Amino acid sequence: MTAPVEMRELSEVECLDLLRTEPVGRLVFTEKALPAIRPVNYVLDGRDVIIRTSADSWASRVAGNVVAFEVDHIDNTSHTGWSVVLLGTATVITDIDTLVRVTDFRDRPWAPGHRDQYLRIQPGQLTGRRLSFTPA
Amino acid sequence: MTAPVEMRELSEVECLDLLRTEPVGRLVFTEKALPAIRPVNYVLDGRDVIIRTSADSWASRVAGNVVAFEVDHIDNTSHTGWSVVLLGTATVITDIDTLVRVTDFRDRPWAPGHRDQYLRIQPGQLTGRRLSFTPA
Repeated sequence: MTAPVEMRELSEVECLDLLRTEPVGRLVFTEKALPAIRPVNYVLDGRDVIIRTSADSWASRVAGNVVAFEVDHIDNTSHTGWSVVLLGTATVITDIDTLVRVTDFRDRPWAPGHRDQYLRIQPGQLTGRRLSFTPA
Repeated sequence: MTAPVEMRELSEVECLDLLRTEPVGRLVFTEKALPAIRPVNYVLDGRDVIIRTSADSWASRVAGNVVAFEVDHIDNTSHTGWSVVLLGTATVITDIDTLVRVTDFRDRPWAPGHRDQYLRIQPGQLTGRRLSFTPA
């Protein structure tokens, strides 16, 4: 059991390319003054991460706050991987043209009756690392 | 793109069983008043999570603080998975008997010359969920 060796810092272009390869990331926020983390589906809209949630859910409470969003991929065979972390303010998307675009770009129907809410995280900071881990 | 359906809350016993199946988790902490997250190797010592780090690294700065530690497994074929989140105070392990035990229980040599430092996270709260995600 050793600490992971951080092999290399990734460029922003590399980070964005890697973010496009995974469907699930982890939203990191503060809840009742305590650190909290939840896995969520996401898509990219340019450089921004878009997360769909319900208006009454935990995720909607993060709107207006600075959050982190992490995506990683660890290969348990080669014991290597990468981790990309985005830091930014989460905002609720209210512009209808934007909503249509972000819900449409994967050809999925948008059902307004579901009381869906979309959060955008615009990256103020985007960092990534290639990592090496110890075999279990 | 839909929000994940949280299928079922997991019991503490289920959470601990799942924590034993993965080698890498994510440490969630606050750095310069901002949310931060890093993938790390870990092992369990009873109910506690043990993380090895260097005395001068980012991880050592979390000692004494309340942190979250998350482990998940998402199956990109079945689009289901689980996530376990532990919340507790991170402390530096200084007791030599404890150090020998946590470094020995996977038959790995402990090299004191490496200036290794071990952090313990004793779970004040341990929660887990089975999740369902939308296909990418």
